[in-house]
Amino acid sequence: MDSIVLPDRAAVAAAAARIAADVRLTPLLRLPARSLGLAPDAELWLKLEQLQRGGSFKARGMFNRLRSQRVPAAGVVIASGGNAGIAAATAAQALGVRCEVFVPELASAAKREALRARGAEVVVGGAAYADALAASLQRQQQTGALLMHAYDQAEVVAGAGTLAAEVDADAGTPDRVLVSVGGGGLMGGLMAHWEGRCRIDALEPTGSPTLHAALAAGEPVDVAVGGLAADALGARRLGGIAWGLVQRHGVASHLVPDEAIRAAQRTLWDELRLAVEPAAALPLAALQAGVVVPAAGERVLLVVCGANVDPASVAG
Amino acid sequence: MDSIVLPDRAAVAAAAARIAADVRLTPLLRLPARSLGLAPDAELWLKLEQLQRGGSFKARGMFNRLRSQRVPAAGVVIASGGNAGIAAATAAQALGVRCEVFVPELASAAKREALRARGAEVVVGGAAYADALAASLQRQQQTGALLMHAYDQAEVVAGAGTLAAEVDADAGTPDRVLVSVGGGGLMGGLMAHWEGRCRIDALEPTGSPTLHAALAAGEPVDVAVGGLAADALGARRLGGIAWGLVQRHGVASHLVPDEAIRAAQRTLWDELRLAVEPAAALPLAALQAGVVVPAAGERVLLVVCGANVDPASVAG
Repeated sequence: MDSIVLPDRAAVAAAAARIAADVRLTPLLRLPARSLGLAPDAELWLKLEQLQRGGSFKARGMFNRLRSQRVPAAGVVIASGGNAGIAAATAAQALGVRCEVFVPELASAAKREALRARGAEVVVGGAAYADALAASLQRQQQTGALLMHAYDQAEVVAGAGTLAAEVDADAGTPDRVLVSVGGGGLMGGLMAHWEGRCRIDALEPTGSPTLHAALAAGEPVDVAVGGLAADALGARRLGGIAWGLVQRHGVASHLVPDEAIRAAQRTLWDELRLAVEPAAALPLAALQAGVVVPAAGERVLLVVCGANVDPASVAG
Repeated sequence: MDSIVLPDRAAVAAAAARIAADVRLTPLLRLPARSLGLAPDAELWLKLEQLQRGGSFKARGMFNRLRSQRVPAAGVVIASGGNAGIAAATAAQALGVRCEVFVPELASAAKREALRARGAEVVVGGAAYADALAASLQRQQQTGALLMHAYDQAEVVAGAGTLAAEVDADAGTPDRVLVSVGGGGLMGGLMAHWEGRCRIDALEPTGSPTLHAALAAGEPVDVAVGGLAADALGARRLGGIAWGLVQRHGVASHLVPDEAIRAAQRTLWDELRLAVEPAAALPLAALQAGVVVPAAGERVLLVVCGANVDPASVAG
């Protein structure tokens, strides 16, 4: 862990230049908190990152890693049952590179199909994510393919941070940022870019508390994962890079119950016509449940991080 | 018809000032046409107006009419089975005004419930929209309530035009605008603001061709309505204001078949995670079906006009 080079604002700026033609500059929806029935009346900025290629912020990191490294003929390999796999396949297909995705048996037929539709070769790598990860590492040793990690590689974290740079360019630096945490790649990217210029509220589902557990233990530790948002936020352990950035820049960490996540997901559809996955509803859920209460007039960024979801599941 | 005062750019500017605190400034998503597999490579600007209050652009016109007129104690009355009714109820509730909505028997239980949830009194006014309209006019005579028309009032058209002014401020004036037409209120608003500065491609479902029929007959005439997008674009006849603006500024009119609308609706979900109603898919459908072929490099605005839809219906 001592040898980790933590990404910083310059690394994010380099990533932004590298992937400018690959990713979408996603729009910001600004509205008063009172228009959603929230008090006090903060200024909400919703970063609509579910509109990103591949349906989540993950494409930023995957394109950045692919654009940073020489990719061998064997292509890339990744273990993922969710958004990172789709993003890796999207980036690999765009750049004409082979892509193998190791999924756990639990990965749904729909997700496997989505990977195949993006040209990836899908391999079942055991019962759980940890098994798929082990299988992917073994495969990487055999083929020499470039290993892509869902959240714990410097290029992946810096790529995620380009989202923050876009917000600055669009509207300025927010006072407060509400962001969901699984392995911590997105949170880490935002920290790398903002370097303490704004307050980061890290939000985890009660069922998958990797950051909470790391803060309690003084280092990343394995946790049991489950609950509504587990498919996107169900990393077993916080990434080492995210942990390093938390120690450098500080963080406020909050747990959000599944009922609040579900309610926020409904509000996002009913009031804003945003069909998003549970992980993307944590920021609004934290406000609605009073887990985070901004001051009047605060500029609060809500990162709407993904929408890889059955749209039938977002309404009532 | 001779006495119609057609809204112009100044009327739209006045409307924008009047409703600035009432409506959402909706974001623009910009992406290259090739990223959706389209050629030649135009620059697509998607105006995400489904994020507007009430789930469609209609709130702009309803707020503008309510803010322009003295509202009697009897409140407002409107005939609508769809987005205009929801928008009128949204605006009336926000301004603390009574709202009666006359719906045809065909209006779904879900739509009636959505109206009631916004504080509106819902009255069934006969079998078809024309019957509900007649009933609403009779009611207006009895109570003296302010009559709101779904598309054929100057304040309603000018309000819709504020969408165009936002695009100018965000990204400049597009070269070409793709917009769906039912009664023509939205198209008319865009024409009022742009006054011929850009090309307007008016898109109608094959099943509800009010503009086509008007152009063929030399004046607005009744048409039979049906098809996939009929709930939002199923006006029986083009509005007199829209017709006046078409004659003043010119238009290119195109029909889009239901299969293309459905395919575009799927693409919007699969590629962009936008869950929208069929009417909002006509602009992309026109490009995908080759009904409209922009030149390379053209800046093409696609108005994503609404998302009052069961989200379960947008995916494959």
